[in-house]
Amino acid sequence: MNDSNLMEKIVSLAKRRGFVFPGSEIYGGLAGTFDYGPLGVVLKENIERLWLTMFRDSRDDMYGVDAAILMNSKIWEASGHVSGFSDPLVACEKCKKRFRADHLDDTKMCPECEGVLGEVRQFNMMFATHAGATEDESATVYLRPETAGGIFTNFKNVVDSMHPKLPFGIAQIGKAFRNEIAPRDFIFRLRELSQMEVEYFVPPAAWEQAFEEWRKMMHLFAEAIGLPQTMVHELEIEEKDRAHYSKRTIDFEFDYPFGRKELWGLAYRGDFDLSAHAAASSTELTYLDEENKEKFIPHVIEPSLGVDRTILAVLVSAYREDTLGEEVRTYLALAPKIAPIKAMVSPLLKNKPELVAKAREMRAELQKIHPAIAWDDNGNIGKRYRRQDEIGTPFCITIDFDTLGEHPELKDTVTLRHRDTGEQERLTVSQVAARIRSAIE
Amino acid sequence: MNDSNLMEKIVSLAKRRGFVFPGSEIYGGLAGTFDYGPLGVVLKENIERLWLTMFRDSRDDMYGVDAAILMNSKIWEASGHVSGFSDPLVACEKCKKRFRADHLDDTKMCPECEGVLGEVRQFNMMFATHAGATEDESATVYLRPETAGGIFTNFKNVVDSMHPKLPFGIAQIGKAFRNEIAPRDFIFRLRELSQMEVEYFVPPAAWEQAFEEWRKMMHLFAEAIGLPQTMVHELEIEEKDRAHYSKRTIDFEFDYPFGRKELWGLAYRGDFDLSAHAAASSTELTYLDEENKEKFIPHVIEPSLGVDRTILAVLVSAYREDTLGEEVRTYLALAPKIAPIKAMVSPLLKNKPELVAKAREMRAELQKIHPAIAWDDNGNIGKRYRRQDEIGTPFCITIDFDTLGEHPELKDTVTLRHRDTGEQERLTVSQVAARIRSAIE
Repeated sequence: MNDSNLMEKIVSLAKRRGFVFPGSEIYGGLAGTFDYGPLGVVLKENIERLWLTMFRDSRDDMYGVDAAILMNSKIWEASGHVSGFSDPLVACEKCKKRFRADHLDDTKMCPECEGVLGEVRQFNMMFATHAGATEDESATVYLRPETAGGIFTNFKNVVDSMHPKLPFGIAQIGKAFRNEIAPRDFIFRLRELSQMEVEYFVPPAAWEQAFEEWRKMMHLFAEAIGLPQTMVHELEIEEKDRAHYSKRTIDFEFDYPFGRKELWGLAYRGDFDLSAHAAASSTELTYLDEENKEKFIPHVIEPSLGVDRTILAVLVSAYREDTLGEEVRTYLALAPKIAPIKAMVSPLLKNKPELVAKAREMRAELQKIHPAIAWDDNGNIGKRYRRQDEIGTPFCITIDFDTLGEHPELKDTVTLRHRDTGEQERLTVSQVAARIRSAIE
Repeated sequence: MNDSNLMEKIVSLAKRRGFVFPGSEIYGGLAGTFDYGPLGVVLKENIERLWLTMFRDSRDDMYGVDAAILMNSKIWEASGHVSGFSDPLVACEKCKKRFRADHLDDTKMCPECEGVLGEVRQFNMMFATHAGATEDESATVYLRPETAGGIFTNFKNVVDSMHPKLPFGIAQIGKAFRNEIAPRDFIFRLRELSQMEVEYFVPPAAWEQAFEEWRKMMHLFAEAIGLPQTMVHELEIEEKDRAHYSKRTIDFEFDYPFGRKELWGLAYRGDFDLSAHAAASSTELTYLDEENKEKFIPHVIEPSLGVDRTILAVLVSAYREDTLGEEVRTYLALAPKIAPIKAMVSPLLKNKPELVAKAREMRAELQKIHPAIAWDDNGNIGKRYRRQDEIGTPFCITIDFDTLGEHPELKDTVTLRHRDTGEQERLTVSQVAARIRSAIE
């Protein structure tokens, strides 16, 4: 949808309908944090579950880990984050506000008060805290700025415990923390975020093939969660902009309402990470090829996906307004696989016990397929449909007097109403069950 | 199992077989942190998924949230954590080691070097960090010390977006952080832990009934994850030991190898939390009863479960050693519902393509029931069974020449081998599928 107020509408719907709330809201908020509400948490779980299925569980070459957020600070020295994970910061000498120097057109005058800006300095984006009962330097720990660190440091543990054959990968979903100078754009640039990452280990000569496979998998995932291919763009990062160790990096960009921005990344990282951690930890991080008796440091392909950015892309691409009947309506065209509610069951009237009993029975039947079957008997049917449209429920089922046999030829049939078109069909209970099953599987 | 080395054996198995690794291990570790490995992460997901099903998704009165770990520090002032979430700490003046004063028999002499201990002082257990580009006091934020805060602060958001009828509850799984002076006992006392918490809101007069319901639910959950009732004990907390606002609190204790210790808690918290947050945030945190036009602050029942402690209890109660045939073996008697691998499929010999093809077919068939069906064709069958025993796989299936029709009456039958007894049955493929399905559903 092309609409200059689209972000505003999405933020408002997300809060009003229980998808995403501002973090610490009753206490005035905390910049760069958001909380997922009852529908948002299920949407998030569905996206993560689908990712785990596609990137981990349906493959014999993938292993999971769930590493701690707090890590020994030596790991971030080895990875270069302590010295290099920083943004250029300038402060206004008059109003004291701080800005990212690389986001300003002019680094002389403050964009807010036109005061003079000070020197540009590097601001490290890692959150530091202290572990243990002392506050001396040795006890400084960082909240991990990316989940990848917890994968590389467990490479040896996974090899020793699971004895995988190369190529193999390690997948992880978890939180990462970045002290962004200017968090913004709702859940796009956060200080606390979730990542879904794979580090895929390959023999050096096989990197291009693996890179291609994961590239295809990322497009398949975009399709599975309902992102239109027209809104997802590959950006080949040129050599001068790539990290020195990377022979190829692709950014997957998405057309957000605030511009085309990075959604996911796919990088060939060579042996940079394992070599750096091996050297810094004095641990051998190699793979022994039993056949050739060859020992070497595997190279790495890294598909990295931000969960929150993915959720925002899903909301942006699913948001629709149209006119149905004579009414303007809003709906979310969510893929049934990830929709928080799969179907809503409704008795035509709530004061007719036979209708209510039949509808309860229908709901119980459908909940054998999936537990997320809502119940709504409040207000007129049109309003109930609109409420479900707005949260992306693909199907609504209404039980009426025909279901009970008022017209004998319609006995035990119900109305199945489709979210995107508003079209209604008269179907038997088992036909409805089959429709829902095939849409969500 | 009664064994003085039981913890050592569990820690060793957990690392060797990919359940739990020490955090930041190659960098010398970080006290109080652990990483879940390939099998541990799936065990954790299975336990969390079962909890979500029982405590949230199978109920119409429950809603989920997933709140940020970083919260505005005012919430922890209102909850009393800034002033009161502390442990008594003493330091030895000679060796400088620190101890929890309440864990020492004698607070005069150091238990390590017999040096003189200093004054007892209160040590706040919250991890503090700084958000934003300044390090002034106003930007101090804490890593949440419990997940409950993210529920109470979203009470109004959930009421406004979901319009729930009282009684209703909010459920959350997430990480919490406690700067323990002496983290210990593997994943029992951690600095970074996961919690599964419900805050259940009730009219004040209904608290006892709700308390009883959740008490029963917690026992049902213990049963579902396979904790023997003989190892789970209710401890009624006496009035003098309860928080002043609580009229009843039960600790669910478990017989860990290091003693009977708190596993879960169930507390009646009155209106303490919502009242405190309402006052501190100047927000109305009330519920309007539409029928009586009565507005009031609901009371709260809080079932609170530590994920890591639950996993440890599961491992402790599942760990077994016995003699099978003439061999001593170790196995984990995990409930099939939560076992990371549901079954292993094996061709009797790996160099017979007909056997391998038939076994692959069998595995694909079983993966329609559940993806976690392992493949093992390495070494003799006895060794393959032992490997699966040790990680708690309930079923092993072997394809042999009879499956291919060597004795025509056995064609298309396989051997199903049971983990706990080692017993083997000859069954058809569809009988095996039915066994697995009924065990994990």
